[in-house]
This record gives sequence, C-alpha cells and structure tokens, in this order.
Amino acid sequence: MKIVEGGVTAPKGFLVSSCAAGIKYEDHPDMALIYSETPCDYAGTFTSNVAKAAPVKYDMALLKKEARISAVVVNTGIANASCGEDGMKICDETGRKVKEALSLPDDSVLVASTGVIGQKIDIEKIKNGIDIMKGSLERGSEAALKAARAILTTDTHEKEVAVSFEIDGKEVTIGAMTKGSGMIHPNMCTMLSFITTDVDMERQLLQKALLTCVQKSFNMISVDGDTSTNDSCFLLSNGLSENKRITGENEEGYKIFLSALSVVTKFLAMSMAQDGEGATKLMECRVINAQSYDDAVTLSKSVICSNLIKAAVFGNDANWGRIMCAMGYSGVSFDPDHTDIYILSGAGPKEELSSEAQGKDYSYELPGYILVRDGVATDYSEEKATKILSGKHVIIVCDMKAGHEEARAFGCDLTYDYVKINGDYRS
Amino acid sequence: MKIVEGGVTAPKGFLVSSCAAGIKYEDHPDMALIYSETPCDYAGTFTSNVAKAAPVKYDMALLKKEARISAVVVNTGIANASCGEDGMKICDETGRKVKEALSLPDDSVLVASTGVIGQKIDIEKIKNGIDIMKGSLERGSEAALKAARAILTTDTHEKEVAVSFEIDGKEVTIGAMTKGSGMIHPNMCTMLSFITTDVDMERQLLQKALLTCVQKSFNMISVDGDTSTNDSCFLLSNGLSENKRITGENEEGYKIFLSALSVVTKFLAMSMAQDGEGATKLMECRVINAQSYDDAVTLSKSVICSNLIKAAVFGNDANWGRIMCAMGYSGVSFDPDHTDIYILSGAGPKEELSSEAQGKDYSYELPGYILVRDGVATDYSEEKATKILSGKHVIIVCDMKAGHEEARAFGCDLTYDYVKINGDYRS
Repeated sequence: MKIVEGGVTAPKGFLVSSCAAGIKYEDHPDMALIYSETPCDYAGTFTSNVAKAAPVKYDMALLKKEARISAVVVNTGIANASCGEDGMKICDETGRKVKEALSLPDDSVLVASTGVIGQKIDIEKIKNGIDIMKGSLERGSEAALKAARAILTTDTHEKEVAVSFEIDGKEVTIGAMTKGSGMIHPNMCTMLSFITTDVDMERQLLQKALLTCVQKSFNMISVDGDTSTNDSCFLLSNGLSENKRITGENEEGYKIFLSALSVVTKFLAMSMAQDGEGATKLMECRVINAQSYDDAVTLSKSVICSNLIKAAVFGNDANWGRIMCAMGYSGVSFDPDHTDIYILSGAGPKEELSSEAQGKDYSYELPGYILVRDGVATDYSEEKATKILSGKHVIIVCDMKAGHEEARAFGCDLTYDYVKINGDYRS
Repeated sequence: MKIVEGGVTAPKGFLVSSCAAGIKYEDHPDMALIYSETPCDYAGTFTSNVAKAAPVKYDMALLKKEARISAVVVNTGIANASCGEDGMKICDETGRKVKEALSLPDDSVLVASTGVIGQKIDIEKIKNGIDIMKGSLERGSEAALKAARAILTTDTHEKEVAVSFEIDGKEVTIGAMTKGSGMIHPNMCTMLSFITTDVDMERQLLQKALLTCVQKSFNMISVDGDTSTNDSCFLLSNGLSENKRITGENEEGYKIFLSALSVVTKFLAMSMAQDGEGATKLMECRVINAQSYDDAVTLSKSVICSNLIKAAVFGNDANWGRIMCAMGYSGVSFDPDHTDIYILSGAGPKEELSSEAQGKDYSYELPGYILVRDGVATDYSEEKATKILSGKHVIIVCDMKAGHEEARAFGCDLTYDYVKINGDYRS
C-alpha cells in the first residue's frame, strides 16, 4: 500500500469542485461538489442523534433505496438541522439542482450540511454555488485540497488522504476528506467524511467494510462529548479499477480493501481528534489487557471524555488520579488496586499512517513510562512525566491486567480556546 | 419552617471546630471536626465510583454496622484515594485519634477527605490537627462558618444553611454544610455534605429520607461530568429535640421532616452547581411534560452536561440548536418536531430557599421566553434572549409535550477559569 496524491480525486473517475457561496460568511469557501463519471455503489453511516438533520434523513432514505450515486454536494455554515419541513425542502431542491446541472438520473445525488443548527439556508445561494461549481469539476491535488478546505468549519486545517494498493493485479485507490471539529463524540461526530474508491465490490460488502472501520476509528474519538445532528460518513465506489468484483468477505480482495480502509479511517479519526476545537495536542487512551473488548472501549472512552483529564493534559499535569477516577465511573467493573497506568509520547497520525502504508504498525515502546502500579503511585519523576505530557500526541496507557483485549480512544486537551470558540460560535 | 443561624451547630447538641493543619497548604484552614453531645443515628450516601477512596469504604462499613456516631473529622487538600492499604491505615489512625481525644466508644467516628487523588496524607499533621480542634469545640454561627470554610477546596465561598420547624409541638432543626466544586456529576459529586439534626427518628427512616432527597438534589447536578472517588453525604440525628420518635413514613412527622430536608438538600445542590469551578452563573434545565420521570431526568441532565451548551451560556449565546442536540443524544426517544424550548431568569438558591421556608414554591413565570416551537425557531429577539442569558441563574425549559412528568437539573457555565483551575490543580 502506498500513500498517493489527489485526495478524493485520487481514485479513477472522481472529480471535485468547490466555491465560496456566501452561505453564512462572505469570501469563505463553503461549498464542495464530488462527482463520479460512472454511478457509484454507496455505503454510509450517520449520527445516532434522535434530532437528525434534514440532509441525514435525506441521505439515509437513499441508502435504504440502495440508490446509485453520481454526486455529493456539501455546504458549511448552516447545518440545515431543526428547520422543520423547510429542511427537507432545502435538501430536495439542492438535489434537484445538482441533478439538472449535471444531467443525472433521479436519486443519484447526496447532500450534506454542517454549521449552525436551527438557522435556515438561503436556497438561492446554494443554487448559485452549484452553478459555479458545475463548470469547474476537475481532478488533481489542488482541486481536492480546495474542496477539503471548503468543507471545514472551526477546523484549523484540511484533512485528506489517499492510498493505493493492488487487488488481483489491478491498482485500487481510496481517497478521503473529512472535517471535525467540535460536537465530536463517539457514535459519529460533527463530522462529514467523504471516502471515494474505484474498487469493484458488492454494495452490502462496502457497507460492512465501512461499519467495521467506523467502529474502530470515528466511533472511538471524542472532542467534547456532544454527538452532532449531522454526522455523516459516505463511501462511494465506482468500480473503475476493474478488479475482479469482490462478492464475499472471505475473498482476499475484501481483506486487502478492509485493511486499507481501516488505515484511512483511523488516520482521519486521529486527525480530527488532533484538530479538535481549541486543541493543542492529540490525547489518546490505550486500554490494554482488559477482560473484554467492550470493557476496553468503555474505559478508554471514559478517560478521553473526562474534562478534568483533558484540562490536566492541557496543563501537562500528570494528574493520574483523575484517570483512575474516570475509569471508576465508566460503568465497567474492575479492580483499581490491580491496575497500572503509564504515559507515552505518540508519533501522531501522519507517522502512523506512513508506517502502516509500509505494512507495519508504528512501533511504540509500550506500555511506556509507569505512573501507577497496582493502583498506587510509583516514585515517577514529575519532570519526566511533564516532558511526555508536553508532546503533541500524549498516550495514556491503562493496563487492566484482567484479560487480553485492548482498545484505543482518541481525543484532545481542553483549552481556553475551546471555551472561546464555543462561547460565541454563532457570531 | 424558618431559616436559622448556626449551620451544622444549629440543632441541639452539636458542636464544631476547625483548624489549619497544613495537610497540603500552609496557613489554610483544612480540617474540621463535628461533635454531638449524644450519639447519633447515622444515614449516608456515597459515590458510585468503582475506585472508592479509603474514607468512603471506612464510612460505608460503619453504615453497614448501623454504628452510632459521635464525631466526624474532615480534611481537605489530599483525598486519601488510590493510596492502597495505606489509605485504610490513615482512616483507622485518624478515627482512633479522635476517639481517644474525645474519649468515645469504638466505631463512633466518621472520617472524610477531599483533594488530590493518589498523594499520601501525613498522619502526624492529621493528629496535630485533631489535638488543636478537640479543645475548641463550640456552637454558634462563627464556629460553624469557620468549619464550612475549612472543608472547601476550589469552592469560592462557604455553603451552609439551617432551618427549624415543628413536629408535634417540639422545635426540630436541620443544619448543614457542604463543599463542591469540581469533579461534580450526578451520582454524587466531589462533594462532602454534612447534615445534622436533633430529630428523633428511626435509623432506616433517616436513611430513606436522605436517599429520597439526594435523588432530587445532589444527583441532579453536574459541573463537569466527572463522578468523584470521595463523594459522601452524611446525615446525623441525635434525637435531642424530644419529638415523639418517628417510626413510620406515614406519620405526619416524617412528612414534615422530609419536606424540610428536601429544601435543605436542594439549596445545597443549587449552591454547589452555582459555585462550580470557574462558573459565572447557575445553569438549570427544567424538562416539563415528559412522558416519564426518568425521561425528564435523563433529558435535563444531558442538557446541563453539554460542554457546548455550557460554553454558549457562558457567552450569553442563545444557541438553542445545541439544546435540541443534547436532548437528541441523551438516549431518550422523543419527537424533536414536537418539542418547545424556552429560557427564563432564575432567582437563585437563596431566593428559592426563603420562599420555600415560607411554605411556598418560588413562583417562576413558566415556561418563559420561547425560542423554539415544535422544533423550529420562533422569531425571538436575540437581544432579549441575550439579556436573559446574562443573568446569574439561567433556566432552560424544555417542553416535551408528551406527558406530565418533570425534572430540574442544575449545572453551571464552562469558562476560561474552569480550564485554568484544572489545567494545573495540583501545583
């Protein structure tokens, strides 16, 4: 597997375009359009929030219909959530406009929105944006990067990646772009993720692969514990790589695709956590030797979701008592007096990606620097602990010594800027 | 019922003392001692955290034994949590020292600690503190206020109250003091609450009354979603009011006591939320017309626990979309398109207490100023909304229009100071 250029346009047959439509702010790129020359099989996962935004309902309906998708249109600034019936009207009109602009069949356009909840989108601005974008669809790094920027809200930088690999002699590529960065919590985030691929695979396998990867990536991150109304992750495959169509999960091709997709989704998830609102560092909790995988997931999420731990990590303060405390109230039954806690410097998403692209895990010196043995503080050096905590990727390792399951959860520190950003997000 | 002076020493037979023992900081009051001239029946509730601090285990054992309690000794600065076997040794030695100092029988002393987790308490400092305090036990407002200050950690002011009322012609008094203020979350807080009373009531009824009141008060507040290792709420009754001993929950006396205790615990809970770490205002969510009481509890807690809503309230930003979102991911099934959201200025704990002391609820003009009707924004005035949000007690009212149950949850805004306080709490 190798890392390649071109983001969502790296796979064969995908073009992209973006523009500043003035949805909420002037002169700020806020719309993107992804187009595939041939119709795609479509897999997707969406927010678990009861108050689903209109675009989410719209796209879920198309997923249920097993629709073949040719285009995805995205806007930022306004989420088109909590807008009552108007919300669905906006989606219908947006979809129809793209369909007409690109002369596509019915039910072939997905819509996605992110931004403020409850405000109404001016459909005319959306339509103008589509008119601008339809003429400038193209491939290549520059266009992809622009699109990756156009979908951002409070994110500080674009997040995109593309990898290619071989399936029975044919080169298959996966491209992706995503945005965070607040209202991020397990069970999908205010996250819009767009994954494109030219693999040829049956739709239900595509869906299965996506769900498998989302569980271990997007559903393992949290910025602030708020699960958004708009979370959506799309996977579109147009089959242009001409690999022998993958029809069973035991086929070698499926396994190769799955492992590549998991590398891509983990990279995107880590990047989102790292770029959480106001974050100065990526915070990871790796629970090892848990009795069950579910225990490992619950414990690690409880740690990365704790405001007290997030604030302590921001302050480079090895306040491990808060870690024990957060595991203690997670709902998992364990023996604190038989639990060890370590800290470790991480390499960050990019480093991990490049080693995984070379087919090997990034080799951490696990478990790391010990702070707590059997529930009691060791005579660790505060100086050394502070040094580790000052890094850009802090890993908290909790050894439950109760079994053989492990999980990694990703979050970020809690900073003044988080409060600043969210104290008056709308103005 | 009337509000009286004297805090925990207001009920007959209770004395208090406090001192600066230098547990963690020099010249900072950090120990308190409550003493009853006659042994007390003892009721208590404790943290649900798996990683319970040693004092919690110690006091739970005495509760199980139905021990008769004569004294409670408290220290702040160090929590005596996650200290392994040493933790229990500290509790034993502390209890023994108080027992000797006041010549008390075995199993008659409760111990409580709050502060940093994982550090070891210097038992000699504790013993010196007890020696200082044993000679200065006294009654009265000044001594009670000093004790209420000595139990504080990051709290900005002492929280105490006392009320008296009549049960079959005898005056009965309840006194209380409590501390917050971080690591505060439903299922008890880093909260130490000490409630004294001279009522004469059977122990199991005392326990029942306490649990009933805790559910609707302390378990309905959250500052940061972190459930502490040390939460403890104690209720001690010495029976000196000489009312006819209450032996059944259908007796008028029980009902009178329960309603007075609920006023006291709600006041303490609201006061803790208001004084949450870094808080500038008390934030309340009142869910009305819910299908079930459990729904109302879950929905209201989800709203007050949301970092995004807490930050928006800090910024006086009527970002109601986040309220709908927080209810949406609470796990409760409801119809967002049939939900109304209002905001309202609250009167604060003191005002509510004084009207309740006069036997009437504080009369709010419910439901308040409407922001959302049937899931969609009304044409509310941002100016007026900002004015309401700028108050010291902000009430978010969510009308589910699905039933007749309601609940009130209390929290506070998320501010720069919260991050500052917790970024380097230990130094």
